[in-house]
Amino acid sequence: MDKADAKALVTLLGIELPVIQAPMAGATTPAMVAAVSNAGGLGSLPSGLYSPDQFAAAIEQVRAATCRPIAVNLLCHRASPDDPVRQQAWRQRLAAYYVEAGLDPAMPVPSGGRAPFDEALCEVVEHYRPEVASFHFGLPDPALLERVRRVGAKLISSATTVAEARWLEARGVDAVIAMGAEAGGHRGNFLSDDMNMQLGTFALVPQIVDAVSVPVIAAGGISDQRGVRAAFALGASAVQVGTAYLFTPEAGIAPVYRQALTEGKGTALTNVFTGRPARGIVNRLMSELGLMSDLAPPYPTAASLVGPLRAAAEAAGRGDYSPLWAGQAFPLAKPMPAAALTRWLAAAIAEEGGEDAADRAS
Amino acid sequence: MDKADAKALVTLLGIELPVIQAPMAGATTPAMVAAVSNAGGLGSLPSGLYSPDQFAAAIEQVRAATCRPIAVNLLCHRASPDDPVRQQAWRQRLAAYYVEAGLDPAMPVPSGGRAPFDEALCEVVEHYRPEVASFHFGLPDPALLERVRRVGAKLISSATTVAEARWLEARGVDAVIAMGAEAGGHRGNFLSDDMNMQLGTFALVPQIVDAVSVPVIAAGGISDQRGVRAAFALGASAVQVGTAYLFTPEAGIAPVYRQALTEGKGTALTNVFTGRPARGIVNRLMSELGLMSDLAPPYPTAASLVGPLRAAAEAAGRGDYSPLWAGQAFPLAKPMPAAALTRWLAAAIAEEGGEDAADRAS
Repeated sequence: MDKADAKALVTLLGIELPVIQAPMAGATTPAMVAAVSNAGGLGSLPSGLYSPDQFAAAIEQVRAATCRPIAVNLLCHRASPDDPVRQQAWRQRLAAYYVEAGLDPAMPVPSGGRAPFDEALCEVVEHYRPEVASFHFGLPDPALLERVRRVGAKLISSATTVAEARWLEARGVDAVIAMGAEAGGHRGNFLSDDMNMQLGTFALVPQIVDAVSVPVIAAGGISDQRGVRAAFALGASAVQVGTAYLFTPEAGIAPVYRQALTEGKGTALTNVFTGRPARGIVNRLMSELGLMSDLAPPYPTAASLVGPLRAAAEAAGRGDYSPLWAGQAFPLAKPMPAAALTRWLAAAIAEEGGEDAADRAS
Repeated sequence: MDKADAKALVTLLGIELPVIQAPMAGATTPAMVAAVSNAGGLGSLPSGLYSPDQFAAAIEQVRAATCRPIAVNLLCHRASPDDPVRQQAWRQRLAAYYVEAGLDPAMPVPSGGRAPFDEALCEVVEHYRPEVASFHFGLPDPALLERVRRVGAKLISSATTVAEARWLEARGVDAVIAMGAEAGGHRGNFLSDDMNMQLGTFALVPQIVDAVSVPVIAAGGISDQRGVRAAFALGASAVQVGTAYLFTPEAGIAPVYRQALTEGKGTALTNVFTGRPARGIVNRLMSELGLMSDLAPPYPTAASLVGPLRAAAEAAGRGDYSPLWAGQAFPLAKPMPAAALTRWLAAAIAEEGGEDAADRAS
């Protein structure tokens, strides 16, 4: 890490502590975002599962609870056209589970949300002017990106390879999130979908630090103070932490999810919940369908047909069909409030003497 | 890291610097082992590709060049019985490559070496009494293990999961190598062959540190000083580094291998060279056969039929069929002599003030 980068990034984002709470659609609540930002870190509100109106309402909740900078997270995949043939094949693959759950395998299912960042969401961003916009799956079209930039938001996005980091830098991001393979939830990959070539945090962070001139935020496998220290040693200017925030009371997750975080045996990458590879605690659907299924329709449309199974199982206290997103370091996380977690993670660096620590790590 | 562990490990192994050169069969030379040990680290001589006589001769070469402690590396897989049907299917799969290379697809091929640690190799160990025995693929039968222990060798072995680390500790190893998914060469997994559940170094090291009471050696993705600092921050008491030593003049590797280390685009896990998953720079055989082939016969028998293709291609200056083992951090490595590399890696920790650095990292 270059000391100037670390200080520059915190200053640029208008925060005090180099800790970013990762956006986790379905688990992050406005209360979590506000608690992290109030503690001096950067809370991130995911837009993925919201309609534009819901997104606006959630931002208002966050703004009401903190006057500190916040990030909003925006998805940049291309929307998949309806594909009735693939949906039908997927429905057929899941039919036996529907029957077992007492559901009609032919029942209509609502579409699954996760709209890509578009005109409507951009208007919300323009209205609420978040201090930071964090993108996933690349970046939006240049015109939309420019509109976000013009509201004054700093731009960050995830890279899972060195090539993606260079691509993001060339398009003007203010910082790159180096997302190692250990990370929970959806991989941010956008130039290649070859999961065999994804790098672990340990190898990825320094290679991206060497490849780009903007500050690098390390993500993936960081759930305690040791991880924070290691990330800075590898050259990161900040950390983005997701899984550990699932253990906070502010996380809006089902009891079966909390239970899996305590009792789960391990994580794997799977596409069976949404159509895109994401890391979660292994459960029945992953085990029985195979982690990466050729039958899963493209992101995000695979999710719709899993929805009714998930709802029925969760109502019965089982997470058989729930996406239990978690990173490989989930066993390291300790339950505590989001504000305390933010300060504790940041203290790993502060303990070493602030500027002196940065000197030593550079 | 517990400071006592770090000091205890170096003392236990009888070395000065907490840097272990990873055993790399086919690349590690006696000169490399001696150079590392003479520099104060621990050189490791792999037995994998040697007959007992060759192994003895190699140890003699090392002993003639250094009076410092050395490690020998011993393979603990179960030998696979001959399986003519699978060999024939593998031969058929490779036949077109034989024809393209002007070779007879029915030509006899020598068997591929890589015998598991056995009576004959144990006699060599008993004769030469290495200070450290490092095992791969678990541990040998208890009787053989006890014989190695009785020569006074300290025992270390690789764990790729927390369960494997606990298994090794229960059988009395003196230290556990936490081998993250970034590592080059053969995965050390022995309790499970599910590659989807292998952890990255960032997540694996602290979980193993928390799970066992013996010192932990971090391996995988460590090719420069940043990696060494990060490994210690995660709780490691030493590092084991392989790939960076491929860039030393002491590495006994073909020109095509050296070229791939400079020009290679990335690594992946593959079983096509030996039948067991190992990480190498992606080349033609991996791309065209698929990284993990169901047709590859069990380790190590897949190697025999690849041998003639490899030899012919290397003679023509191509690495199309060569196992180009390398870890994910290979782009971070810098060419330098093995002794200088050992001292440079160790200086990453020493710079921080020795005991004080250990205090800060604990």
